[in-house]
Amino acid sequence: MEHVYISQVGEHVGKEIKIKGWLYNKRSSGKIAFLIIRDGTGRIQGVMVKKEVEPEVFALAREVTQESSLEVTGVVREDERAPGGYELNLTGMQVVQMAAEYPITPKEHGVEFLMNHRHLWLRSPKQHALMRIRSELVKACRDFFDQQEFVLIDAPILTPAACEGTTTLFETEYFEETAYLSQSGQLYMEAAAMAFGKVYCFGPTFRAEKSKTRRHLMEFWMIEPEVAYLEHEGNMELQEQFISYIVKKVLDNRGEELEILEQDPSKLQKVVPPFPRISYDEAIDILQQQGADISWGDDFGGDDETVLANQFDKPVFIDRFPTDMKAFYMEPDPERPELALANDLLAPDGYGEIIGGSQRIHDPDLLRRRMQEHDLPEDSYQWYLDLRLYGSVPHSGFGMGLERVIAWISGVPHLRETIPFARMLNRLYP
Amino acid sequence: MEHVYISQVGEHVGKEIKIKGWLYNKRSSGKIAFLIIRDGTGRIQGVMVKKEVEPEVFALAREVTQESSLEVTGVVREDERAPGGYELNLTGMQVVQMAAEYPITPKEHGVEFLMNHRHLWLRSPKQHALMRIRSELVKACRDFFDQQEFVLIDAPILTPAACEGTTTLFETEYFEETAYLSQSGQLYMEAAAMAFGKVYCFGPTFRAEKSKTRRHLMEFWMIEPEVAYLEHEGNMELQEQFISYIVKKVLDNRGEELEILEQDPSKLQKVVPPFPRISYDEAIDILQQQGADISWGDDFGGDDETVLANQFDKPVFIDRFPTDMKAFYMEPDPERPELALANDLLAPDGYGEIIGGSQRIHDPDLLRRRMQEHDLPEDSYQWYLDLRLYGSVPHSGFGMGLERVIAWISGVPHLRETIPFARMLNRLYP
Repeated sequence: MEHVYISQVGEHVGKEIKIKGWLYNKRSSGKIAFLIIRDGTGRIQGVMVKKEVEPEVFALAREVTQESSLEVTGVVREDERAPGGYELNLTGMQVVQMAAEYPITPKEHGVEFLMNHRHLWLRSPKQHALMRIRSELVKACRDFFDQQEFVLIDAPILTPAACEGTTTLFETEYFEETAYLSQSGQLYMEAAAMAFGKVYCFGPTFRAEKSKTRRHLMEFWMIEPEVAYLEHEGNMELQEQFISYIVKKVLDNRGEELEILEQDPSKLQKVVPPFPRISYDEAIDILQQQGADISWGDDFGGDDETVLANQFDKPVFIDRFPTDMKAFYMEPDPERPELALANDLLAPDGYGEIIGGSQRIHDPDLLRRRMQEHDLPEDSYQWYLDLRLYGSVPHSGFGMGLERVIAWISGVPHLRETIPFARMLNRLYP
Repeated sequence: MEHVYISQVGEHVGKEIKIKGWLYNKRSSGKIAFLIIRDGTGRIQGVMVKKEVEPEVFALAREVTQESSLEVTGVVREDERAPGGYELNLTGMQVVQMAAEYPITPKEHGVEFLMNHRHLWLRSPKQHALMRIRSELVKACRDFFDQQEFVLIDAPILTPAACEGTTTLFETEYFEETAYLSQSGQLYMEAAAMAFGKVYCFGPTFRAEKSKTRRHLMEFWMIEPEVAYLEHEGNMELQEQFISYIVKKVLDNRGEELEILEQDPSKLQKVVPPFPRISYDEAIDILQQQGADISWGDDFGGDDETVLANQFDKPVFIDRFPTDMKAFYMEPDPERPELALANDLLAPDGYGEIIGGSQRIHDPDLLRRRMQEHDLPEDSYQWYLDLRLYGSVPHSGFGMGLERVIAWISGVPHLRETIPFARMLNRLYP
């Protein structure tokens, strides 16, 4: 008999098929048993009528435990009232393995317990919804850039020197040398943009921050496009087009998952260009008016970002930060050199910064000066300086943290649920 | 004037456009200058006639150096003889930056020199072809599994324990603990397959092998699908469908790049299912007949793999290896328990193993026994054992090393050119 995945049962109405999966839930009376079976692609209710099957099969249906693995046969029936639109009239059943008592029950569990059982927790509907949204977003991110002829250039993880200081770096012995786990592929993307015009990388990045907030992971995925001849304004336009595209893909293809997460799609439907833009100066004014203890030149804290984002119902750009606050490679604003052509993009609802972008310095002398000011070893960065000697051009790019975007789109408060196996302070298992 | 990428000039025939790029090459006489311009998406020849432009523009065209960044305007003209099918009648030109003397010249350079200048070497046509094939393959890999409803589940890089011994692991301090850089996401994929049925991960993996062969990198990308209820035979079928699909995508979309690499497409066109299958036993026989010093129970060396692969003009499966040679988690052959339901897939032409796959042990007692035999700490692997307690099912998967596949498809002898920034013994720069 044909093995059919639950997501495909609609193509087999009236036919007898086989499903291979796990018992999600059941209830039974003396005469009838309802088994909800999951196989990873969906869930379906199987209805077993005592008098229609062998007595030992019916007995088995009453005994089978949650998460037991089983193969069932049955006839697909359309049923409007059924959650997926179909039910299965069961004709047979085999238990592959009777599961031991499953540790995750419908009662409330503490987060530590669930994170310790992440390998099992992933089977639950909410985690399913989150991982499918993640999978959808990754595909949307890649499609957006692939369709526009960006070339994927994977940045190395093991790097000889740090992009932004070494205090938050994981380090490892690399034969005779010391290597650091990458915090950003950007510098490499700049080299690649000079070769390919439009490039991106998308991979894991690492930050050894001894902080324990809901917005931080030690290991997270970042997508970083970089475009030659693109200047600051165009870079912000690319960002808003990009974010709007990936949000729309989730709305188009993951409506069911948003529903499971009780996330109101109408909020996400507002995410279309243009996004509001406020300057860093204006942001400081707004925060001061709201009573925040912040002065020009200070960086925003998480709470500040929330206050700013709450002024708008779309993601908001904060534009032109003080140069001193930002990384060494950012192009100064020609009209106000104390500002960098750098932007953050803040998500609504307190999810904080989801994108940081900037135009990069293309003048070799200015870049060398900045590197000296930041005590960067010229040897390690010679290749990066080279990019300013052999056909330097204005160029810009940005980095988007995947997990924060998943959290925002899905409406989950903590990043730990947005990645399959979160790495946090005191969390390296499973 | 509209900025157009070179790959799009065909849509602007007869119109004056602007190209932003770099000087790839030039030749000129007293009356005419031919500038070959690249912008990352392609190359086009610009023709500048002295009497049609300002004198200082023509003088600039004669002065401009290789890899200088420049913006030119010109009218697009169809020309069958031109490499891309189009030429540009130049009307104007601005040099953004006159490049310093470019270190990579048409003369032969040593490999160390080129690898030290990898950030510039990426601009050359052969490296372009390789990176575009890489980008195409990554997309094809993801599309293949996405289309079949596999869920992308990114495996963690920082892991608490090793999959296959610790001697070849990079390690890092993780706050109070020790973490290792992942060599494989497989164990995590097994957990995910029990939740989602069909999953894959695709990310960087690390092997601190003190070896210096053309087939090894310290950091390389691996795609690892895992499927619940899939057994050994089906796993091999999935592998041959997958490899055939991604090869076809390169043939369909990257013909130009294969031509640059002087790679004969007819060899790749043969890569269609079914692939030949020989058993490990047969492989040993073949090698012994060819005079190799190898006995039953030995692993294959690189040369052995080449001898075996050379028997066929498609990738070849080597099936059922001795259990003792292979990882602890592999399901024994029920008919010959000294063999594991494990296969390698060898690429033609001496590129070696591109896939390793197996059915995994699903019996909890057998798995626990094997873990004890391999001295694996039960604490660290409790979550992995859990998968055998709560609805264990037969399941299988495989891992494909991306760089070896690129090398094989592209016909380049050494892996170092298949990844943007290779990490090898003594190579952590740039």
